Amino acid sequence: MVLEAIKYTPHSLAILDQLRLPHESVYFPIKNSVDAFNAIKSMIVRGAPAIAIVAALALAVELANTEFESADDVREFVGDKLKYLVKSRPTAVNLSDAARKLENLVNETEGDAKTVVRAYIAAAEKMLVDDVSDNKNIGKNGLEWAKKTIGSDKFSILTICNTGSLATAGYGTALGIIRSIHGDGLLSHAYALETRPYNQGSRLTAYELVHDNIPATLITDSMASVLLKTHPEIKMIVVGADRVAQNGDTANKIGTYQLSIVAKHHGVKFVVAAPTTSIDIQTKTGEGIAIEQRKPEELVTVRGPVVDKDGKVNKEEAKTVHIAAPGIGVWNPSFDVAPAALIDAIVTEKGVAEKDQNGEFHLESFL
Amino acid sequence: MVLEAIKYTPHSLAILDQLRLPHESVYFPIKNSVDAFNAIKSMIVRGAPAIAIVAALALAVELANTEFESADDVREFVGDKLKYLVKSRPTAVNLSDAARKLENLVNETEGDAKTVVRAYIAAAEKMLVDDVSDNKNIGKNGLEWAKKTIGSDKFSILTICNTGSLATAGYGTALGIIRSIHGDGLLSHAYALETRPYNQGSRLTAYELVHDNIPATLITDSMASVLLKTHPEIKMIVVGADRVAQNGDTANKIGTYQLSIVAKHHGVKFVVAAPTTSIDIQTKTGEGIAIEQRKPEELVTVRGPVVDKDGKVNKEEAKTVHIAAPGIGVWNPSFDVAPAALIDAIVTEKGVAEKDQNGEFHLESFL
Repeated sequence: MVLEAIKYTPHSLAILDQLRLPHESVYFPIKNSVDAFNAIKSMIVRGAPAIAIVAALALAVELANTEFESADDVREFVGDKLKYLVKSRPTAVNLSDAARKLENLVNETEGDAKTVVRAYIAAAEKMLVDDVSDNKNIGKNGLEWAKKTIGSDKFSILTICNTGSLATAGYGTALGIIRSIHGDGLLSHAYALETRPYNQGSRLTAYELVHDNIPATLITDSMASVLLKTHPEIKMIVVGADRVAQNGDTANKIGTYQLSIVAKHHGVKFVVAAPTTSIDIQTKTGEGIAIEQRKPEELVTVRGPVVDKDGKVNKEEAKTVHIAAPGIGVWNPSFDVAPAALIDAIVTEKGVAEKDQNGEFHLESFL
Repeated sequence: MVLEAIKYTPHSLAILDQLRLPHESVYFPIKNSVDAFNAIKSMIVRGAPAIAIVAALALAVELANTEFESADDVREFVGDKLKYLVKSRPTAVNLSDAARKLENLVNETEGDAKTVVRAYIAAAEKMLVDDVSDNKNIGKNGLEWAKKTIGSDKFSILTICNTGSLATAGYGTALGIIRSIHGDGLLSHAYALETRPYNQGSRLTAYELVHDNIPATLITDSMASVLLKTHPEIKMIVVGADRVAQNGDTANKIGTYQLSIVAKHHGVKFVVAAPTTSIDIQTKTGEGIAIEQRKPEELVTVRGPVVDKDGKVNKEEAKTVHIAAPGIGVWNPSFDVAPAALIDAIVTEKGVAEKDQNGEFHLESFL
């Protein structure tokens, strides 16, 4: 069974509590917008698409379980609640975009209270369904491309960061391609980079791979090259994308640029998995993407449950420990840019972009 | 002042307690071979050359503070104590080599008790002096090579793992070259990779750089490439060596191979610092060096002092925390091999090896 981080049925919603992962798998019930606000604020749910969908569905559940006198009462209620939900993470563009679209929808929907409620619920449910279906199409397109390009023998794949059910509405982008290739019986083994400094690979991707029973191994980020050299059955590195520039340069989790160099050196395919919403056609190249710095604490401290002297993990007692020399300066860019020249394919839900004979991507055709 | 991990004067010895680094700088006094045995066994001192020298000097201090009746009493005492000291780390080749040489020396020295004691002490002191002087010559040779090859403008350097005073008898190999270039006023900035999974970079190299007031910054192993791309003033990567094969292939801490690829991609000089004792002329190439696996715990757990809610580091309370999904498989090779093709120079205490026009090193000349 593929991991389901967002469990939704009409009238009920629960999300996998990311604060307790990977050592505990506990679903956090969300009965209304207050629960969603708190879950987003406290990082129980993370990842831009996931946040927007959880907020939208929380309000859908609340509407389904509330009686309204008139359509205008519904419109006012939705407007107020969306304004409140956006405040849970004001910087999340997906969340404010979704709120604006949903508010417009209820304002434009004619009919009685029940009709407006039904329209809202249908729209919120469609967000979830569309996001998962886009990811499944990325997976399908990635599988087809791999069959065409790599062949029909089993092969292994290396990935970085978390791009799975925990980072999206479900299934995942780069991890969706791994799931799809595994589902087809073509995957020999998946390798996950731990992805310092925040360890999304060891915490989240490893959790998803174990959950889905995909044969998988964790390595440090520094081991990618010797892994490729000693494991020629690894034919593909697949990564997600924060933003893809017009020319195909791809900003993604720190370490992605290094991985693209390493792929080229070993003749391994380097594939970006991204929904077309990640393509920023206004930004010509990666040079136009500023590298944001994150706080030094992320690099010199680590948090996790305490291991006792017998090697037993105590899930009840989490601690933050300091792992570097006091006084040392830290550089902590949040992402870097893999250049189009080192990327073999950009897999979207609408199809796969490859370079022409001049080495140029043409991403406009997907928009 | 350059960090002094082994403080020796005739009649007294103290070593920097590596169990309490990097958060506390405490010297552990060693008055005799029992203290040395315990310090080696409990990892207060690590690193093959350092262990051998601490054992030899501990016995020197003990001999200097003991009265003997005859030369034969000294010989018997030394023989017994060396046998005992070797048991503190039976796998350490440097330690058993040193013990054999010192035992032969006292057996071959003629004269009274005082003469034999003096001969032992002189030999043990020479081990310390020779190792530090070899490292200083590596530093000097590295500096001269850099001036010749890179030029006389200030430049920055990136390094991996710990190759400094804490890993050697003093000064260091790769970190010795950084110290030497800094001492000459030619160093703009030093960058240290944290060096997962055991974090020798963030714990030990960062500690030494802070101690010596060398301008320095810590990064994760995955950041090397974007660092080189955005910091063109970095002209050189310098690494240590566990073993150098006849053709120049160099086995060193995991991540060194990846770093050599990254250096080539960015046109940055890749330099190995190694005493000639690390050159293994019997091993033709890196293919002949088996990659040893270390235990998975090293990758999925981390130890350090606890950070409280206000961000204060509590030096009194160290904990081990678990940082990965339970059940995930782990691959943990202890080192990898940078191929001669990607190495620009091998700096030894006797001189610098560069490749001839056929791209071949000739290391025999240094032996």
